Amino acid sequence: MTRIERIDVQMVDLPPAAVRVDAMQSFVKQETVLVTVHTSDGLSGTGYSYTIGTGGRAVMSLITDHLVPALLGRDARPVEALWRHMLDQTRATTVGAITSLAFAAVDTALWDLRGRRTGESLWRMAGGAHERLPVYDTEGGWLHLPVEELVDGAKRAATAGMCGVKVKVGRPSLAEDAERLAAVREAVGAGFEVMVDANQAFTSAEAIRRARTYEPLGIAWFEEPLPADDLNGHRRLAASTSVPVAVGESLYSVQRFGDYLAAGAVGIVQVDVARIGGITPWLKVAHAAEAFNVAVSPHFLMELHVSLAAAVPNGMYVEHIPQLRAITRSSLVIEDGHVAPPDVPGIGIDWNPDALDDHRVA
Amino acid sequence: MTRIERIDVQMVDLPPAAVRVDAMQSFVKQETVLVTVHTSDGLSGTGYSYTIGTGGRAVMSLITDHLVPALLGRDARPVEALWRHMLDQTRATTVGAITSLAFAAVDTALWDLRGRRTGESLWRMAGGAHERLPVYDTEGGWLHLPVEELVDGAKRAATAGMCGVKVKVGRPSLAEDAERLAAVREAVGAGFEVMVDANQAFTSAEAIRRARTYEPLGIAWFEEPLPADDLNGHRRLAASTSVPVAVGESLYSVQRFGDYLAAGAVGIVQVDVARIGGITPWLKVAHAAEAFNVAVSPHFLMELHVSLAAAVPNGMYVEHIPQLRAITRSSLVIEDGHVAPPDVPGIGIDWNPDALDDHRVA
Repeated sequence: MTRIERIDVQMVDLPPAAVRVDAMQSFVKQETVLVTVHTSDGLSGTGYSYTIGTGGRAVMSLITDHLVPALLGRDARPVEALWRHMLDQTRATTVGAITSLAFAAVDTALWDLRGRRTGESLWRMAGGAHERLPVYDTEGGWLHLPVEELVDGAKRAATAGMCGVKVKVGRPSLAEDAERLAAVREAVGAGFEVMVDANQAFTSAEAIRRARTYEPLGIAWFEEPLPADDLNGHRRLAASTSVPVAVGESLYSVQRFGDYLAAGAVGIVQVDVARIGGITPWLKVAHAAEAFNVAVSPHFLMELHVSLAAAVPNGMYVEHIPQLRAITRSSLVIEDGHVAPPDVPGIGIDWNPDALDDHRVA
Repeated sequence: MTRIERIDVQMVDLPPAAVRVDAMQSFVKQETVLVTVHTSDGLSGTGYSYTIGTGGRAVMSLITDHLVPALLGRDARPVEALWRHMLDQTRATTVGAITSLAFAAVDTALWDLRGRRTGESLWRMAGGAHERLPVYDTEGGWLHLPVEELVDGAKRAATAGMCGVKVKVGRPSLAEDAERLAAVREAVGAGFEVMVDANQAFTSAEAIRRARTYEPLGIAWFEEPLPADDLNGHRRLAASTSVPVAVGESLYSVQRFGDYLAAGAVGIVQVDVARIGGITPWLKVAHAAEAFNVAVSPHFLMELHVSLAAAVPNGMYVEHIPQLRAITRSSLVIEDGHVAPPDVPGIGIDWNPDALDDHRVA
């Protein structure tokens, strides 16, 4: 038995380097909650989750008030049982974002610990399906940028060897969205993927109308076209267009993904390891998607998702948004438009203690 | 313009008088978060929400960190716009229990304020469909009680003139559940409703099997038979049995209720005004249910739900669990098995400041 002896919880803020504006929000903070679990055999593992600016202290409260007391003294090894135990302690606060983010930081720490104990990387523990995966870029595609900058961003991503670029949509008129996308397509040529992301801006009817204009541009996917919870809207949209419907960053339970898969409402699953509640449920979603012949291209959290997406056969692309640069000594290398998962024990993130001290807010 | 000038937030703990055990949990705390909104015209309104023991501090954090700053200085009157503004501030923490509970306390305070400003009761503002509604009892039906106490509890509810009693199910064997229900049915006779509540204990297959044994007993509904998020399971169960499927206390968005209604997965909507995020979304769920010819019998929070259930044409029963007795000077009167909504300005709850002081934990 390797008993959980101490759990440290802290929060750092990692403001994005550039302003980010999409159809729903702009954000200037990234509260990053870190949990470190120490065990009786002298090991420790660290996990994390994030907010885009609201709820960090609520996540901290759930962890310190309820999860830490529920875990101290327990065997750290059976992560599925521990996840279930966390759920039992907090059931009436689930389903939901805040609770999932709290679970995720703890669950990821337990996986890190498992890898450090057994000497295996997360990528291998979780399946090890691919040695590397292609990367696409999001940093140059924000909604507030004028079309010239959008085109420049796409060209930069292409020059950097990435496989594609994501462009935010949701400008007031369909014509303006279409014009911006056409300019990007013309600049990058046919052999480069262009994804679009509406950040939940549309009604189903409007999304169906806009999707038709994306089809001739060979758009790779239409991300978060509708309020994430609108199952029937996604089903209707997916049935109406040849553009794959990408959804999942704002779904908070394995069962919810089951609904979308069963309804044919999702073409590309974008499950987010923090928002789904950790690695334990993330893998279930990926495996469920495989059962439906649906690919997984996870949302954000590149440093962790590279290991998870590469671990499963249906892993597709990794989204390039370096999030942890300021607080880690490790970094991912993009070669030939691809990124390889770290193959060191645990989740493969080398935290920088001094930098954590500098960024700590709680 | 009646400007929001100050918002007070506090939390009291109201431990249940009796131990409560169901198929999923037992609980000994009721964290009750209260929000009072003060406006420039000298009025104030108070709303509240609750947890069953976990997450109270997280709810408080969301309110004080994000909702209060977003609301101060605004016109208190347009509650729909204010609800949407709260959502915009915290979108990436939604959907979910913690965020909904935070919204609910604020939204309910704004409705209380609206009623106090206009001189109308919540019941009238929300529609005023019924002058009174029948009441059923839950206090005598807990899962840990031996069958004799269960029977006594049901008899007490019948003697008190209530219309029915809710009995928890989910004992290990189907036979034991059936035996307990048969004893209750025999004790109360045919003219009294018996509801059963599994608190999400079963798989769909097991729920279908158990429901068949409830049918000959004339059970009024089968509440939370499955994990609340299992849409397809509820749909299959509802299609398989004549016992109405009651669900909703653990659903956290209007859209989610839309899914259940569209799928025929719910026979009785049990939307909870705290967990759905306040009166504003509660009414939308009730109205959507009406569009599907589905009744609403809300979960818990009797003191507030009596006004809401009586306000809408499809309001059905009120669940009798006095929750606020220790901290209020008002109380609901049951007459002839029915309860009438308060007809005073606002939500009709007369808080006791001294008692609030005594129970305050934050």
